[in-house]
Amino acid sequence: MADPSKLERRGLLYVLSSPSGAGKSTIARMLLGSDSEIAMSVSATTRPIREGEEDGVDYHFVDNAEFDRLVAQDAFLEWAHVFDHRYGTLRSEIEKSLAGGRDVLLDIDWQGTQQLKQVDPDIVRVFVLPPSLRELRRRLEHRGTDSEEVVARRMERAAAEISHWAEYDYVLINDDAEICAAKAGAILDAERLKRERRTGLVDFVRTLTG
Amino acid sequence: MADPSKLERRGLLYVLSSPSGAGKSTIARMLLGSDSEIAMSVSATTRPIREGEEDGVDYHFVDNAEFDRLVAQDAFLEWAHVFDHRYGTLRSEIEKSLAGGRDVLLDIDWQGTQQLKQVDPDIVRVFVLPPSLRELRRRLEHRGTDSEEVVARRMERAAAEISHWAEYDYVLINDDAEICAAKAGAILDAERLKRERRTGLVDFVRTLTG
Repeated sequence: MADPSKLERRGLLYVLSSPSGAGKSTIARMLLGSDSEIAMSVSATTRPIREGEEDGVDYHFVDNAEFDRLVAQDAFLEWAHVFDHRYGTLRSEIEKSLAGGRDVLLDIDWQGTQQLKQVDPDIVRVFVLPPSLRELRRRLEHRGTDSEEVVARRMERAAAEISHWAEYDYVLINDDAEICAAKAGAILDAERLKRERRTGLVDFVRTLTG
Repeated sequence: MADPSKLERRGLLYVLSSPSGAGKSTIARMLLGSDSEIAMSVSATTRPIREGEEDGVDYHFVDNAEFDRLVAQDAFLEWAHVFDHRYGTLRSEIEKSLAGGRDVLLDIDWQGTQQLKQVDPDIVRVFVLPPSLRELRRRLEHRGTDSEEVVARRMERAAAEISHWAEYDYVLINDDAEICAAKAGAILDAERLKRERRTGLVDFVRTLTG
């Protein structure tokens, strides 16, 4: 008998969106750490590299001309302006992961999610809300990496991002990162068990019923 | 701030179907034991009460005339013939649970599931497959409660039940009851996080964005 947990299945695209500071990165890290079958999609960006970041790991850092060229080549599944920079999901990144039998975690905003939904209606969309705007501001200020002006802009942008919560399949409220990550994991587990994604079931049932 | 885990949500109807012997009852018991927010729907049946069963707990045991009367009163959300007896889900049972803010677990077959889907398209349908038919037969014989003839009929019926697997949203293969119950639990957790079921989110986001 074939190991049922090894039944062939379609890889899934798991989108995690939230306003900046809602804890999405922490949740993504926990999810990736607890599950070996999902990998982060490394986006391309025109934003400058920050201290501690690594090219090809955190992002593919490219200049504006290179980004333009990638757009012209239709190399992106989706791309968006965020503040003064552009961010995009490379088709090649996604295809590499799915071909390796791995699901892909995408950390993109509502603009990217809308575009991706057009290209692939089967995506799983999860929105992370902060427990309150006060807590969101506290987290943004606590990071200490951003100026007061940048925090103000992020707060404005957060409200805009939150206004798109109803376009998502699942909504999490992040008042505890561990609990929130566990819930994000339950969504991943459940989505993998959906009949339509488990392409190996047809053959399995055939062996069962002869 | 309101406790996000206490946000108002719509109760859900969680259907678990499988051929007899695939371990559905064990999984249901584990799920009910690990989660206080879901309750079993107690079906009405014309089948005679068995040793160890309790009226009103395992089933509402009724005679044929009473079952006819309930059908005529439209008291059932769904009902079906299984072997020589009839089984039905009482509307009053479901409404009682949902009104109490609890989800409802239904142990019904493909016929009942089809009927229920007509009445409530929002149900969550989970099908449990045995790892093999040989294992299914072993489990049925191991129970020792049924004659050889009954086991043969159950095996025939199992094949018929399995033929409806593709009408379900999720499919589990039960080669380990603990793992299978955990997966059934992940589906329950995820389904509760679906935006459309979380009716309290609209107000929550309103307090968030002022």
